[in-house]
Amino acid sequence: MQTVPRQEIHQRIIKFQTRLAARQLDGAFILQNADLYYFSGTIQSAVLFVPAHGQPLLMVLKNIKRAELESSLENIIPVENKNSIPHILNDFGFSRLERAGLEMDVLPANLYLWFQQSLPQCSWKDISSIIRRLRMVKSDYEIEQIKKSAAVLHTGLTELKNIIREGITELEIDGHLAMIARREGHMGTLRMRGWNQEMTYAHVLAGRSGATVSLLNSPHGGTGNTPAMAQGAGFRKIRRNEPIGVDYGVAINGYVGDQFRTYVVGTLSERLNKAYACSQDILALLVDKARPGISCAKLYEAAAQKAQQEGLSKFFMGHGEGQVKFIGHGIGLEIDEYPIISPRFEDPLENGMVLALEPKFVFPQTGVVGLEDDYVMTAEGLKRLTLTDQSLIQI
Amino acid sequence: MQTVPRQEIHQRIIKFQTRLAARQLDGAFILQNADLYYFSGTIQSAVLFVPAHGQPLLMVLKNIKRAELESSLENIIPVENKNSIPHILNDFGFSRLERAGLEMDVLPANLYLWFQQSLPQCSWKDISSIIRRLRMVKSDYEIEQIKKSAAVLHTGLTELKNIIREGITELEIDGHLAMIARREGHMGTLRMRGWNQEMTYAHVLAGRSGATVSLLNSPHGGTGNTPAMAQGAGFRKIRRNEPIGVDYGVAINGYVGDQFRTYVVGTLSERLNKAYACSQDILALLVDKARPGISCAKLYEAAAQKAQQEGLSKFFMGHGEGQVKFIGHGIGLEIDEYPIISPRFEDPLENGMVLALEPKFVFPQTGVVGLEDDYVMTAEGLKRLTLTDQSLIQI
Repeated sequence: MQTVPRQEIHQRIIKFQTRLAARQLDGAFILQNADLYYFSGTIQSAVLFVPAHGQPLLMVLKNIKRAELESSLENIIPVENKNSIPHILNDFGFSRLERAGLEMDVLPANLYLWFQQSLPQCSWKDISSIIRRLRMVKSDYEIEQIKKSAAVLHTGLTELKNIIREGITELEIDGHLAMIARREGHMGTLRMRGWNQEMTYAHVLAGRSGATVSLLNSPHGGTGNTPAMAQGAGFRKIRRNEPIGVDYGVAINGYVGDQFRTYVVGTLSERLNKAYACSQDILALLVDKARPGISCAKLYEAAAQKAQQEGLSKFFMGHGEGQVKFIGHGIGLEIDEYPIISPRFEDPLENGMVLALEPKFVFPQTGVVGLEDDYVMTAEGLKRLTLTDQSLIQI
Repeated sequence: MQTVPRQEIHQRIIKFQTRLAARQLDGAFILQNADLYYFSGTIQSAVLFVPAHGQPLLMVLKNIKRAELESSLENIIPVENKNSIPHILNDFGFSRLERAGLEMDVLPANLYLWFQQSLPQCSWKDISSIIRRLRMVKSDYEIEQIKKSAAVLHTGLTELKNIIREGITELEIDGHLAMIARREGHMGTLRMRGWNQEMTYAHVLAGRSGATVSLLNSPHGGTGNTPAMAQGAGFRKIRRNEPIGVDYGVAINGYVGDQFRTYVVGTLSERLNKAYACSQDILALLVDKARPGISCAKLYEAAAQKAQQEGLSKFFMGHGEGQVKFIGHGIGLEIDEYPIISPRFEDPLENGMVLALEPKFVFPQTGVVGLEDDYVMTAEGLKRLTLTDQSLIQI
């Protein structure tokens, strides 16, 4: 089993410490699985304290042996329960924390209040934005993991050609994608940071199901088969000549690949074919425009403008209440990472950012068509990580 | 698509309001998906305010049309963004909230602070325990949904007999279970309330993988295939004469079924067979002892005593650091519901509680054997919801 290389963890901690110090923070406590894995290499039940200066302290509730095997950090300490954490901090010379950071976008209120009560002299700052901005630039190691996910997605999207047929349900197709994902080593969950946002392994949305708006911050939601989930595949049977949108995600060694392909049994209408071609054009345009230094907002504008030129604005990235204001997002340990390629996200692109770019068009009652591919930003431009051809997949 | 019956929602709200009033709370805000679904019938992005007296108010951010279709509540109001919530509360006569409840075990710190700032006159109480205790007693409707999940699990556990063979990997078996689950209508996620606890559709743990301790609050964790997930199936190939523990969960209409079976290609050693028989005996004993009014702690004691009599205490519900102090738990909209059948949970059993009882034995280096079945507490005793035979499954 592959653990995170020591040098990776070391570099991440150093960068994080620089940013903590720049904000006059004495340190930060990391608890959430994705963040914990990023900074320590393990998700064993633990609290990681990263001081602005000095060695981090991984305090492990369960399981200490696996934490020691998985993490390359120096100071890994077993703790009986979290109430001994203040004492351990003392023992390691961190007795006078005055300003410390917490992942306040994800940490439950009760845990936040526990920190307040346990370290009463300390004031607390939200460091989620620091972490998300740190994590948005990927190392070569991280890009390699996303490539592995892209390879699994390619296997699944290719095998799917032999599975999709008239009369099969969205859920059966979804089930096949789940089977392939796990067989090939998908770790079994797609982590998403947003509050109350939940993921299935795939979205398989045929015809009007692809035009169904949902709670998700996504151009397509799907009906699902129960309001208890309210997204994704349902018992709808595939019909001829309707667009079948397949959004597929897997995670290898923690790192998510996230791609979308459009399938059809038969042919699509001229309107849908035109929209599909426009999504191809938008991807080409984004590849052409994207350079380190260009703002995410500007990149979004280029895509939106292209959709407008083609008279497709009304259907671009959803329709009506379901229209979303982004054309892509970062991927990494979570599926909703920074940067967001949206009018409100002014950060410039940087080398090493990995983006899922997803130009899609949603037509009321009719469905969703489009593409989603994964790219890494390099000095020479966007480099495609996806292995799968960008054509419409006709069966 | 089946929505939650109006009468269900009505009854739940009435009971919740009684408990809010008893604690001198003016009302409570509900946001988390499982709770929101329980009290409103929808998980569309929304904030539900339940006053101690009067009509609840469902304030919907996205998607209002689906929320109206899915929820039987009277007052469903679209909101542009959450900052308009205080005004809407005013409009509906809830301007003087002094004490209100929040789901502080799951609500992120930033949202908690947002409530503090937006309604500064109000003091905030954690109502997670009220909600969890309310939800632990199920209605006939809810029990029907869990029966549907049990039927899907039966299909999967039965089909598995034709899939498991020497040389197939844990992950392939897991993939087949995922495919069957989705094909049959599993909604695609198993909700778990515990902080940082994550679920795959199944655990498939062969041989020593079943004896691997993990971060999970579960007697078995598994290796997984990456420390980024650190649980569940891995690339280990099935061998003859080793125990294969299969923990399988699905959710139909939101409601989880959770069962465990032990498979073997060939035969198990005498020691493992004896432990397996003991897990059957413990289930029979629990069925014999369980009555409305008996405390969960007492039920646990009966099971632990039986394991001790058989000389199996050291392996009962895990071994070493992985040993857990429970023999079962509630299931419903989440997989880790109340009650917990543990020495520390003194609540008495009540009619309508649905329990997953899971006597298991874990032998270091060797693996896990045991059973998990779902039951409902009735005046006549525990009624089994599981359809699958309790024998060891030999292939």
